[in-house]
Amino acid sequence: MTVSATRPRVGIIGTGAIGGFYGVMLARAGFDVHFLLRSEFSAVAENGLRIDSAVHGPLHLEPVQAYASAEDLPPCDWLLVGAKATANAELAPLITQVAAPGAKVLLLQNGLGVEEQLRPLLPDSLHLLGGLCFICVHRTGPGAVVHQALGSVNIGYHSGPLADDPGARQALVEEGAGLFRQAGIESQAMANLEQARWQKLVWNVPYNGLSVLLRASTTPLMCDASSRELVQALMAEVVQGAQACGYVLPAGYAEHLFKVTEKMPDYWPSMYHDFSHKRALELEAIYARPLAAALEAGCELPKIRALYQALDFIDAHNR
Amino acid sequence: MTVSATRPRVGIIGTGAIGGFYGVMLARAGFDVHFLLRSEFSAVAENGLRIDSAVHGPLHLEPVQAYASAEDLPPCDWLLVGAKATANAELAPLITQVAAPGAKVLLLQNGLGVEEQLRPLLPDSLHLLGGLCFICVHRTGPGAVVHQALGSVNIGYHSGPLADDPGARQALVEEGAGLFRQAGIESQAMANLEQARWQKLVWNVPYNGLSVLLRASTTPLMCDASSRELVQALMAEVVQGAQACGYVLPAGYAEHLFKVTEKMPDYWPSMYHDFSHKRALELEAIYARPLAAALEAGCELPKIRALYQALDFIDAHNR
Repeated sequence: MTVSATRPRVGIIGTGAIGGFYGVMLARAGFDVHFLLRSEFSAVAENGLRIDSAVHGPLHLEPVQAYASAEDLPPCDWLLVGAKATANAELAPLITQVAAPGAKVLLLQNGLGVEEQLRPLLPDSLHLLGGLCFICVHRTGPGAVVHQALGSVNIGYHSGPLADDPGARQALVEEGAGLFRQAGIESQAMANLEQARWQKLVWNVPYNGLSVLLRASTTPLMCDASSRELVQALMAEVVQGAQACGYVLPAGYAEHLFKVTEKMPDYWPSMYHDFSHKRALELEAIYARPLAAALEAGCELPKIRALYQALDFIDAHNR
Repeated sequence: MTVSATRPRVGIIGTGAIGGFYGVMLARAGFDVHFLLRSEFSAVAENGLRIDSAVHGPLHLEPVQAYASAEDLPPCDWLLVGAKATANAELAPLITQVAAPGAKVLLLQNGLGVEEQLRPLLPDSLHLLGGLCFICVHRTGPGAVVHQALGSVNIGYHSGPLADDPGARQALVEEGAGLFRQAGIESQAMANLEQARWQKLVWNVPYNGLSVLLRASTTPLMCDASSRELVQALMAEVVQGAQACGYVLPAGYAEHLFKVTEKMPDYWPSMYHDFSHKRALELEAIYARPLAAALEAGCELPKIRALYQALDFIDAHNR
């Protein structure tokens, strides 16, 4: 594995399935990637990171530039945050610690409002971006990730020094997309991050929630007439909510994601893993904030509301 | 126990929690009550019927006029059908067998369309009525029922020889209500059975479905802010559906049932028992037909629709 000093240095904050996969892919492409770990530090320091990928084959990164403490990382130009959105507030000091001057912080998280939550806790000099990952990955053990399918990342600029300079802002987003593309990962620079987040919700709102509500992975959900109708109805409400908020999603976008999911290998969305491990569900970002944003724009989304209330009950009784 | 020959003879078809409770209460009041049983026949014939009632104390009916075959019952004037609505078609020949000339068949079942399903399978000479039971009962074993609270029955005429004679029809409904009242049970003669069925749906739609969806009994459902809101929203949609179909429910009816449920002892609705015993859920009567009736009247009920689709998925994967 060669490391090029002229390439930007990448820090991975939260080396779960998402951070682990993209970190290993970037390291494999020759980027200087540093991993901040917590509970998995010793396992990864000893045995490296393993990605069992149905797309790229078995990948093994060893040795890994692994750290148990943010103070030990070198200053990074790009920070990829793959931790759960519910943990962003406590991550802010670590991100600040690790960031090189003018660093780009990319939140690889779903839902709305995740940047808004983190922004006030970061120095103004940092660029904050969001990335929406269309990927089927899950962690199977310390330092071990299974990558079943897909992988593309849609990136948009949220806030920072270039907020008022659309051209430079878009160039920086392109730079981020280029990073992934150099690692063999599809990546799109999105002109509007909020729109990108709504687009991703078209997938997350039905599949994350229904996987918990119905204890079902994507294949059974796509094989039953009633759950198919429910998925489509929830997707339609997300599109409607986006529209009310001023984001017109590409024509046929919901149908496209529905068909992509039909062709996907059987997949348990991350919310189901959180549920089965009795962790907090990301209900704020994926349900409560989109519902509030749509309502603010005069649009009530009754099926998403009912799903959210049911999930909130389940979450409260699951911990 | 005395039996009066001048009183109408009552047959109980389906001696589960509902049939067992009302049958014992009527027998206790001196009516000549005959029970048609299937799997529980020998247990009941040997040990009688036991109702552990929080309202009326422990009740033990023994001996029970119990039968394993419809051919052995004497002709009955009133037939109380407490079996699951999903079994009505196969019950029709048994009901016909047991019915005295001009007998009254009273379906103690929830939901819409249960009489419509049975009617074509019965002789025209029989009166068909529906009864909505507001009661917390459940079966705990062969011939053993726990009665936790409530008990009233709202009765309405569906079809038969008096269909075109409103006065005589209502007198017959009053006769049925009188039967229950003589047994110490509150009973109301309803001018319109379909309205009575919609009223009962205001309770069944939220609590039956959510008990299965959230694996929760009434107390936790009434203690959580999100599930409370969801219950209320579902109730409001039932009221809306009823209105679209031409039935204006009494003012404040949903709020009334909500408060009644708050004061009830913790209760697992019958649909949850069906779910946990991997039996078919009564989704047609309680969800599909009300949704279809409302839609026919131009009214879509999005939260009930979503709940129904989720339950239909659960039901299909539960058997």
